[in-house]
Amino acid sequence: MDAKTANTKTGSSKPSDARALRADIYDFNSAYAACIDDGDIMLWPDFFTEDAVYKVIPRENWDQNLPLATIFAEGRGGLIDRTVAITKTTVARPRYLRHFISNIRVLGTDTGVIRAEANYMVVETMPTEVTRILSAGRYLDKFVYEGKELKLKQRFCIYDSEIVPATIVYPF
Amino acid sequence: MDAKTANTKTGSSKPSDARALRADIYDFNSAYAACIDDGDIMLWPDFFTEDAVYKVIPRENWDQNLPLATIFAEGRGGLIDRTVAITKTTVARPRYLRHFISNIRVLGTDTGVIRAEANYMVVETMPTEVTRILSAGRYLDKFVYEGKELKLKQRFCIYDSEIVPATIVYPF
Amino acid sequence: MDAKTANTKTGSSKPSDARALRADIYDFNSAYAACIDDGDIMLWPDFFTEDAVYKVIPRENWDQNLPLATIFAEGRGGLIDRTVAITKTTVARPRYLRHFISNIRVLGTDTGVIRAEANYMVVETMPTEVTRILSAGRYLDKFVYEGKELKLKQRFCIYDSEIVPATIVYPF
Repeated sequence: MDAKTANTKTGSSKPSDARALRADIYDFNSAYAACIDDGDIMLWPDFFTEDAVYKVIPRENWDQNLPLATIFAEGRGGLIDRTVAITKTTVARPRYLRHFISNIRVLGTDTGVIRAEANYMVVETMPTEVTRILSAGRYLDKFVYEGKELKLKQRFCIYDSEIVPATIVYPF
Repeated sequence: MDAKTANTKTGSSKPSDARALRADIYDFNSAYAACIDDGDIMLWPDFFTEDAVYKVIPRENWDQNLPLATIFAEGRGGLIDRTVAITKTTVARPRYLRHFISNIRVLGTDTGVIRAEANYMVVETMPTEVTRILSAGRYLDKFVYEGKELKLKQRFCIYDSEIVPATIVYPF
Repeated sequence: MDAKTANTKTGSSKPSDARALRADIYDFNSAYAACIDDGDIMLWPDFFTEDAVYKVIPRENWDQNLPLATIFAEGRGGLIDRTVAITKTTVARPRYLRHFISNIRVLGTDTGVIRAEANYMVVETMPTEVTRILSAGRYLDKFVYEGKELKLKQRFCIYDSEIVPATIVYPF
C-alpha cells in the first residue's frame, strides 16, 4: 500500500467530494481558531455537537494507549463549564493566543461521521514578552454535518511536549 | 447566531464563490510572502492598489481603539518610499524572513471590496543564529479585483507581542 | 511584470486546473508530513519517484550557487538507505517532529513536470523540553503524476538557519 493513499483516501467516491470536505474543514478550523484567539470564548462550545468529547492528551500517553488526559470535557454542558472556568480564572496572567492549523487530512467517512486530522501550533504572547510556542501537536477529529454546518463530535488534541499542561488556560 | 456562521458568511450567495475567493486569497498571500521572503522587495508595492493603506499595529492598541501604528504607509507612493528605506537601511543586520499565512477567513463582500482575515507568523533567522519567531498576529485585509488580479486596498497587521517593533525592517 | 503574476502563473490554461493541482499538492504535503511526524518513516521513500533527488541545502549556499548540500540522497535506493540509517541511529536522542507546510505556490508545468514551492517549518520536541523551531525554509519541488498519484521527482529543502544541520535526524 502506498503511503500517500493510506493517508488521503476517503469514503467518498469522487475526489471533488473529498476536496469540498477538506475546504469545509479548513473554514471550520479557521473559525474555531478565530473564536479562541480573537473572539468570544463563550462561543467555543458552539463548534461541538451536544454529545461531543474534547480531550487534551500528551502524545507520550496517547502512543502508549494510556487513557490519561490533561483536559477532559464531555457534552456541550462540559464544554460550557470549561469556558466558564476560563473566564472566571483570575489567577492566570493575561495572554494572547494564536492558532496555526495546517496539513488537514481527511481520513474517511463512516455512516456520516468524518474522521480527519490536522497539525496545530498555538503560540502565546504574554505582555512585555516575545511570542513563543505554547504547544504543537495534532488534532484527531470526528466531524458531523448538522444541516450545512460542520460540528465536532470529537476533538482530541495530542500535544508533543509534556511540559505545556501546567499553563493551559484556553483550549487548543 | 452560530460562531462558525458569524466568521465564514460572505456576501456571495453561493458557497463555491466563497471557496474560489478564498483560493484566490491563498494564492495572493503565498505570492506576497514569497516576494518578501525570497524575492525582490521592490515588487512589494505591486500587491497594493494605488490608494492602499498599510499599517502595523500592536494588538493592545487595536483592542483599545488607539490609533497609534508602528508603521503607516499610505498610497502606492508611501509603500515605495518604505521599500526604498528598507533597501537603503544599512544599520540593520542581514537576516532571513519567512512568512506562514494560514487560517484565511473571508468575512464578506461589499460593493466590490472583500473583507478577509488571516493569521500570520513571521520567523526570522540571523546569520549563525537559530530561527525564532519575530511576530505573530492577524491580517485585517480589504481586497479588490483589478481585472483578474487581487490587490490589497488595506492590510492592517495586528501583532500580538509589543516587543517586536524595534527590529521591524521588512514588512509583515 | 506584476509580482503576483510572476509567482502564480502556471503552464495550464485554466485557473481551475492550477487550483486542482495546488489542492493535490496540499494533500500530498499533508500526507508527507504525517508520514514523518506520526507514521512509519520507512514509507517516506514512497513519496518519491525511482529517480528522485532529495537535498537539504543551507540557504546561504543556495543563494550563492554553491553546490554543497547537508543531505543528499539520489534514487529510491538512496532514500531507502537514508531511512535505514535513521531507524538504526541509536546515538540520537528520541524526539518528536511536526511539519507545518504552507504557502504552496505552483510555478509552472513543463512536459509533465510540475514545479512548485512551499514554506515549511519543522518544530521539534525533546522529552521534558518545550517545543522549539528546528528548521524553517522553503521546498523547491518537481512533481510528476504516476497514474493519479503525485510523486516527488525533486525536493530541495532550502533552510534558513545554518545552525540546524548538526541535529538533523529525520528528513525535512
